[in-house]
Amino acid sequence: MNRREFNRSLLCTIGAYALHQSQSNLRANGQRVNTHLAELSQFGKNPQGGVSRVAYTDADLQGRQYAIKLMREAKLDVSVDAAGNIVGRRAGSDPSLKPLVIGSHIDSVPEGGNYDGDVGSMGAIEVAQTLAENNVRLRHPLEAIIFQNEEGGTIGSHAIAVGLTEKDLNLVTNSKKTIREGIKFIGGDVDKLASVVRKPGDIAVYLELHIEQGGILHSEKINIGVVEGIVGINWWDVTIEGFANHAGTTPMNQRRDALLAAAKYVEAVNRVVTSVPGRQVATVGKMQAFPGAYNVIPGKVTTSLGLRDLDAAKTRMLFEKILAEVEQIEKATGTKFEFKQTNSTPPAPTDVRIRRVIDEAAKQLGFTTKFMPSGAGHDAQEMAHLGPVGMIFVPSVDGISHSPREFSRPEDVANGTNVLLATLLKLDAMKLN
Amino acid sequence: MNRREFNRSLLCTIGAYALHQSQSNLRANGQRVNTHLAELSQFGKNPQGGVSRVAYTDADLQGRQYAIKLMREAKLDVSVDAAGNIVGRRAGSDPSLKPLVIGSHIDSVPEGGNYDGDVGSMGAIEVAQTLAENNVRLRHPLEAIIFQNEEGGTIGSHAIAVGLTEKDLNLVTNSKKTIREGIKFIGGDVDKLASVVRKPGDIAVYLELHIEQGGILHSEKINIGVVEGIVGINWWDVTIEGFANHAGTTPMNQRRDALLAAAKYVEAVNRVVTSVPGRQVATVGKMQAFPGAYNVIPGKVTTSLGLRDLDAAKTRMLFEKILAEVEQIEKATGTKFEFKQTNSTPPAPTDVRIRRVIDEAAKQLGFTTKFMPSGAGHDAQEMAHLGPVGMIFVPSVDGISHSPREFSRPEDVANGTNVLLATLLKLDAMKLN
Repeated sequence: MNRREFNRSLLCTIGAYALHQSQSNLRANGQRVNTHLAELSQFGKNPQGGVSRVAYTDADLQGRQYAIKLMREAKLDVSVDAAGNIVGRRAGSDPSLKPLVIGSHIDSVPEGGNYDGDVGSMGAIEVAQTLAENNVRLRHPLEAIIFQNEEGGTIGSHAIAVGLTEKDLNLVTNSKKTIREGIKFIGGDVDKLASVVRKPGDIAVYLELHIEQGGILHSEKINIGVVEGIVGINWWDVTIEGFANHAGTTPMNQRRDALLAAAKYVEAVNRVVTSVPGRQVATVGKMQAFPGAYNVIPGKVTTSLGLRDLDAAKTRMLFEKILAEVEQIEKATGTKFEFKQTNSTPPAPTDVRIRRVIDEAAKQLGFTTKFMPSGAGHDAQEMAHLGPVGMIFVPSVDGISHSPREFSRPEDVANGTNVLLATLLKLDAMKLN
Repeated sequence: MNRREFNRSLLCTIGAYALHQSQSNLRANGQRVNTHLAELSQFGKNPQGGVSRVAYTDADLQGRQYAIKLMREAKLDVSVDAAGNIVGRRAGSDPSLKPLVIGSHIDSVPEGGNYDGDVGSMGAIEVAQTLAENNVRLRHPLEAIIFQNEEGGTIGSHAIAVGLTEKDLNLVTNSKKTIREGIKFIGGDVDKLASVVRKPGDIAVYLELHIEQGGILHSEKINIGVVEGIVGINWWDVTIEGFANHAGTTPMNQRRDALLAAAKYVEAVNRVVTSVPGRQVATVGKMQAFPGAYNVIPGKVTTSLGLRDLDAAKTRMLFEKILAEVEQIEKATGTKFEFKQTNSTPPAPTDVRIRRVIDEAAKQLGFTTKFMPSGAGHDAQEMAHLGPVGMIFVPSVDGISHSPREFSRPEDVANGTNVLLATLLKLDAMKLN
């Protein structure tokens, strides 16, 4: 190396150091991201609070137009893909690298809140805006994606990560449109869906900021959740057959009461699932007694079971334990249970390395962290088919979600956005492939 | 007393003795009453078995015409009263005595059976026919009544015993007709309802033969149930408020699950009611969880409570015990229960002397007996307003009732009819007023 080369090298090193310094000082505009959240909340606003911005409705379309405007202001190169996802691109300095993908969704459940999906979406746009304002060019290309119809079953991210089937396209959604009609409605093109499907390895990482939707961070007063993965979801329809009979004339010891059996079942599910350590959850959400009259002993009950955990083997073990209890209940009550599985989504663990980077980034920003599973499904579980994923949680006040009372404090939204930004910068500097 | 007087007196005594002898040998025609039951079952017959002879329908009208025909054959003086009850009269030898009333109903629940009400109705007509064929004149006038619309709330007997209100008349029944329209349909006259209302003391006794509708006599292989009274019926609507939340993100220990509370409630009701000796029954017949989805912890449950016993004080005691348990459940689950009473029918005990006469009559005929409450409501509970009542139960196979599978064996129907006849003859010989 001659002197000129040495000087140039030194300048580069100083430049890189300066860049790193300036990047680690880079902060998102917390006030702006909260303003954007408030503005977004106008589209589909409920009179009684919260929002009903159901995918493929006019409110959804308005929210999407608003997001596209913000993405353009953030100097992203915006397009709507054939599946209807909004994709904002920012070029990287190394064209050989795969993209860093960030994003979430802005559709809501009916009578939903203003944070689920919205925080990650507005946070991703804020990160792009911060990079643009500070003229920071990443090594990797950046993509900020607003996935369509997450609440209807992570449809947009599934279209990218796996692909949609004819059966998927014919599903009728909460908007009353089929997914096929919905995609057309939001500007996609179902004839070109093949063009959006990516292959494993097509992305460097996927990072998603989201509200926790549970009450752990809030009750433990922790700033940031480092998500260990999205739990597997198992649903069963459960039918209990007893014998309907006259409630006045049938002695207590001659009854085959399907509702008494159902009561013992609900208690057994609760007992089994809380009998072992861990963060597994079980829920009996449905219950109806038939014929459903004051004076008839229920002859039939329809109910359900939902089991979620990060560990599929543990879920199986818990289900076996519940079945063993059910056998005892059948004998004790003279009833018969039938379980029919209706959903079996496997767990989607996040990347161990990305978890560490998120944790480090959050701590460097002065935040407390907690490693935790995500009990809810997210677009990240779809994107996990394509590459390593990470998720950042911010607290939900009182753990309320899918409700007009859903709320995350502005400082937590700002903190989460800064952790997303800092994590992205750290990952960009790493050798990921 | 001179010789002539003595001889006349002796002849009278011999005559009374002969009469008593012939009367105690009097038997109903068991084959005929079962034939009549089978013929009656054709009116409103369901394709899949059983009968739907709902009050105020064409099937009801056909069944009533059939009953009127049988009553005329039994030499009863038949009329339809202003409330639509069919009343068949047979004069007694002592015009100063109040009538002995026997009867039941021939209307059924939708998808009902061929024994509830029908056995007592055909049995009462058979008793009258037996008296007519054997030229037996009772001291008391006899009335055989087929009460209209028992299944809709003992409407016909209520019209006689208490009277119908405007509100009653406007009730829409299972036939889709109001009671007012129904009474007109079956030949009554709502403008003359006052004429059918009787006063306490207007009857000597009311006797009703009925199927048990429970499984006690059948399982204990007993021929005849001597009814101690019709239990009081208490119904409550119960609402349980918890908090609906995300089933995936809400840890087990942060839930306020209304359905878990409901399960504990159902078990508590069962435990409390079976914890004390006696034949009281409690039934939770209704249960629905809201919003009723796999992935939402139920925030609300609507359910019910039904409590029946012959002893109103015991019912109150049991309800208090249930409320005490509910208080514990509320604390343990973070939920709130609300009880709203929707029915409170007091117990209607049968007359102690009539119970003894039934028991004696049954035993003299060679039958086993059991004293027991009636868990179901009957026209007898209305007639108890007017005078002493008695009820005779025959076994229901497997205790099934209000179902096409309702069945009582022909020999039990014949036995019950003979106990009704023998009891009536004994009561007729007694000083009742």
